Amino acid sequence: MTHINQMLEAYPKDLGEVNQQKLADCIAACFECAQTCTACADACLSEDMVAELTKCIRTNADCADICATTGNVLSRHTGYDANLTRSIVETCRMACKSCANECEQHAEMHKHCSVCAEACRRCEQACAELIDSLG
Amino acid sequence: MTHINQMLEAYPKDLGEVNQQKLADCIAACFECAQTCTACADACLSEDMVAELTKCIRTNADCADICATTGNVLSRHTGYDANLTRSIVETCRMACKSCANECEQHAEMHKHCSVCAEACRRCEQACAELIDSLG
Amino acid sequence: MTHINQMLEAYPKDLGEVNQQKLADCIAACFECAQTCTACADACLSEDMVAELTKCIRTNADCADICATTGNVLSRHTGYDANLTRSIVETCRMACKSCANECEQHAEMHKHCSVCAEACRRCEQACAELIDSLG
Amino acid sequence: MTHINQMLEAYPKDLGEVNQQKLADCIAACFECAQTCTACADACLSEDMVAELTKCIRTNADCADICATTGNVLSRHTGYDANLTRSIVETCRMACKSCANECEQHAEMHKHCSVCAEACRRCEQACAELIDSLG
Repeated sequence: MTHINQMLEAYPKDLGEVNQQKLADCIAACFECAQTCTACADACLSEDMVAELTKCIRTNADCADICATTGNVLSRHTGYDANLTRSIVETCRMACKSCANECEQHAEMHKHCSVCAEACRRCEQACAELIDSLG
Repeated sequence: MTHINQMLEAYPKDLGEVNQQKLADCIAACFECAQTCTACADACLSEDMVAELTKCIRTNADCADICATTGNVLSRHTGYDANLTRSIVETCRMACKSCANECEQHAEMHKHCSVCAEACRRCEQACAELIDSLG
Repeated sequence: MTHINQMLEAYPKDLGEVNQQKLADCIAACFECAQTCTACADACLSEDMVAELTKCIRTNADCADICATTGNVLSRHTGYDANLTRSIVETCRMACKSCANECEQHAEMHKHCSVCAEACRRCEQACAELIDSLG
Repeated sequence: MTHINQMLEAYPKDLGEVNQQKLADCIAACFECAQTCTACADACLSEDMVAELTKCIRTNADCADICATTGNVLSRHTGYDANLTRSIVETCRMACKSCANECEQHAEMHKHCSVCAEACRRCEQACAELIDSLG
């Protein structure tokens, strides 16, 4: 995800007091988690036991949407709004936690849920660290 | 926005204790606000005084992303997660409030900011009412 | 969808030779179809016979994403790119046609598929008319 | 982007005749380009000469939306629709080409446009290779 750091360094104004590496890590984790959740929802759809995975598919869909939006908000720095940033990152942390909890229940049976749970935990952690660093 | 109510009525399982009309109104307001904010950001870009509207453009972009995601989350009912719903709707309320505040500063000079501020206020209000109705 | 027309009228520069009402109708149809497809995918998930609806859910998910993006692109007018506009609207028309075809197969059994098929056909038609009007 | 390959390998059914590495590369390029374009639009907004970058900002916004949607469509394999896949990837290739052309005009003056042009060219190329491999 070098491109994320390159774009942060190329931003023409001051990025403020944010921890730049934690910001970059959180952006990367959001996009990774969005892609993984979209793929996991689709993989669940193709399982013969899809009827037992409907909650997982819905949780994946929400998590994908929320992570993508959070990744977009964090990629913008003009007219920074600390309260809104904190609120969307906190919502993203919650979505990732819910999705990780759900996917972990199917992780032994379905490899895609196992991979997805890991991506969600990484993003949950990255969101938590970014929130902490915002002070 | 009849289609939103039609889809709520066609949902095959119980929608739970949610106030169905407030839910429908909030979904409609989210999609309306997303479209209006995207159009307002673009209209600001075409103003000769765009340099004075950069914060407005950014606020519009965030509000559009957050409203679209909130509209999607509220359109799903399978495996309902009350805490996550509350968190994303609260974030959406904040985004709409910020964007309305920003657009109102340009509303006398730019008609698109005036129309957008109204869409943001409607969505802010619809989010607040939905949150209240969630108990 | 008065807000869409209001924003088109508030655009500060020339909108070009586009048929403004067909553009407004297509934007409205895109956002309506995006919401309806997201709701239909979720309603399918809650059907006991979800295993027979997996193709429908996937088609809904693609159609929702493509309609939302097309609605966004059509809401922007600055630096208009005729070829790209034509290509995304044509892709949207295809997505709506595929989704309508799929939903119609379940329309007698599932009311949400019936409502969704209608939204998809409206959007397919609106895309076709906009493309024709682009000359 | 190991997670993309992991999810492709974890897909429970046959992925068909697609070239799996070209598919993974294209998904990765789409998400990278979406993030970079969103960041470039915002960086342009913060330039003192923003008035000369309005077309770039709009092109970035379209490219970001189209790449994100294409990345999502390519992450789903259930009920694969070859014509729709080809159409959205071709639209994405066009969006990336337009955005690269635009960003390259500002690449000497603005580092973010230079980085963004490279991400767009990579994604344009990845789309072209995926289309070719689809036969």
